[in-house]
Amino acid sequence: MHILVIGGAGMVGRKLIERLARDGRLGGAPITRLTAHDVVPPKAPQAPFPIETRVSDLSVPGEATALVAERPDVIFHLAAIVSGEAEADFEKGYRINLDGTRDLFDAVRLMEGYAPRLVFTSSIAVFGAPFPDAIPDEYFHTPLTSYGAQKAIGELLLADYTRRGFFDGIGIRLPTICVRPGLPNKAASGFFSGIIREPLAGKEAVLPVSEDVMHWHASPRAAVGFLIHAATLDGGKVGPRRNLTMPGLAVTVGEQIEALRKVAGDKAVARIRREADPVIETIVSGWPRKFDAKRAIELGFKAEGSFEEIIRIHIEDELGGKIAD
Amino acid sequence: MHILVIGGAGMVGRKLIERLARDGRLGGAPITRLTAHDVVPPKAPQAPFPIETRVSDLSVPGEATALVAERPDVIFHLAAIVSGEAEADFEKGYRINLDGTRDLFDAVRLMEGYAPRLVFTSSIAVFGAPFPDAIPDEYFHTPLTSYGAQKAIGELLLADYTRRGFFDGIGIRLPTICVRPGLPNKAASGFFSGIIREPLAGKEAVLPVSEDVMHWHASPRAAVGFLIHAATLDGGKVGPRRNLTMPGLAVTVGEQIEALRKVAGDKAVARIRREADPVIETIVSGWPRKFDAKRAIELGFKAEGSFEEIIRIHIEDELGGKIAD
Repeated sequence: MHILVIGGAGMVGRKLIERLARDGRLGGAPITRLTAHDVVPPKAPQAPFPIETRVSDLSVPGEATALVAERPDVIFHLAAIVSGEAEADFEKGYRINLDGTRDLFDAVRLMEGYAPRLVFTSSIAVFGAPFPDAIPDEYFHTPLTSYGAQKAIGELLLADYTRRGFFDGIGIRLPTICVRPGLPNKAASGFFSGIIREPLAGKEAVLPVSEDVMHWHASPRAAVGFLIHAATLDGGKVGPRRNLTMPGLAVTVGEQIEALRKVAGDKAVARIRREADPVIETIVSGWPRKFDAKRAIELGFKAEGSFEEIIRIHIEDELGGKIAD
Repeated sequence: MHILVIGGAGMVGRKLIERLARDGRLGGAPITRLTAHDVVPPKAPQAPFPIETRVSDLSVPGEATALVAERPDVIFHLAAIVSGEAEADFEKGYRINLDGTRDLFDAVRLMEGYAPRLVFTSSIAVFGAPFPDAIPDEYFHTPLTSYGAQKAIGELLLADYTRRGFFDGIGIRLPTICVRPGLPNKAASGFFSGIIREPLAGKEAVLPVSEDVMHWHASPRAAVGFLIHAATLDGGKVGPRRNLTMPGLAVTVGEQIEALRKVAGDKAVARIRREADPVIETIVSGWPRKFDAKRAIELGFKAEGSFEEIIRIHIEDELGGKIAD
């Protein structure tokens, strides 16, 4: 089985490739080859199969065609300009997130007798406030960012191309990934991970919103699990509605902090410094808080059951099991 | 006020232009000029202002830019490849319905200091079965045709470009237009109009489905009313959710026939011949039947209150008030 990962240098792409390298198989079939693509060089971990890395801009004419020319059996399309950049640079966002996605879909469409499983990462940014308490699977898409609009369009294309038989697509809307490893960043959502990751590493973290802010989380490990499940799921069970809100955990910032206290004690919690930021408060208030991800759960997608579990996964996967004193 | 009608040769476009010619004004402002565009020559009725007709393919590079170069104050974008053709010719459907629409939106975006009201006709084809009894405004879009996917994408672009301030868009999802004037056609929905129009003209009509089939209707006159209202509506009242399901009338075929009996008698009803067509039954069973078009009604859009009214409008507007004996 040949697997193509587009967006292989991102955090989720990297973890997906590491997991595939560890497993050596996907859905019971041995992986014989993996191609990792991104605009910056993806890392190739030790694996029981060859990993080829490719660096290029997906939206350059001909690039998508070249990427699928060897007919990979499964394509993971994770590449995107992130929300903030797609908002700051309108044309770049549409070029990569819409045209790049459509180029890829068309490259697959135009190959005779080829209809691979194609897993597309969408986002809960397809939803725009105001929301009901828990957003149901049938709720409409009124994105409040260009990124969300581009992802919602990708979903529509994916469903139509799948209905036409050009490929066998599954779109998954990822929750906010928490705890996100790496350095603190400027993303408005950064604090959800920061208030856990930094204290566990013995560092101070800033909390810019009040403790009653609720949000929708899943661990990086769960996100990789969603991708693997989406790649191996029986498409017949999904039917024509190919885009799914992934399960997650709706917790308040206060509940996050209490989970941190249980796992790492008062000393860790004391490293969180409250510093209200009205700009971030406003941005976050427009975000979804909670979903009723019924269909995805019925189809076997699994997220964490508690925020303590999310913290323990971070400690296991990123900190070698050790918390700073 | 300069008005541009793209898709001016279609049935709704023609009736819109006739209405504007009669009114001489739009939203209280005198119309000084109208440009009617289509791929076939639009008709220019007598009007108190000059009407220019233009014939070209909107999706040809540069054409959209040329159309908006003179900065019309209001743009009606009604042009589309219809459902059946967009399904039969995948690339043509996407080229006209998606790329043509995006070209138009981008042409407006790229003009500095220009943000006209832009009215886009979407369709209830953005919805795909299964449905709740009455589809609410918040129901998601899972189209089962490429046409529906293209319209849903147009809606997302319209909302995002409006949010960005590139224009001031309103998207309206028209009900099935009934009674559609003209000759019987091969459209699967043709019989909804045929069973009224043909008997009123003294001709036989074929009914291919059972009398309990329910569908969502508005007259051509109501459709023109929706367009005019969308062009003059206060955008501030609409907010960021710019796409609206228009009101309509949910009636069964049996109720259509009883309305025909009340208006035109048993003799007209006797001209309907039942001839079941399982293919049409299947297509129609995937269509929306009924909506709860709450937002549009609150915003002042008005449809007919009874199917008899729809029939009487047809008799007035198309038959000069006279029914065949």
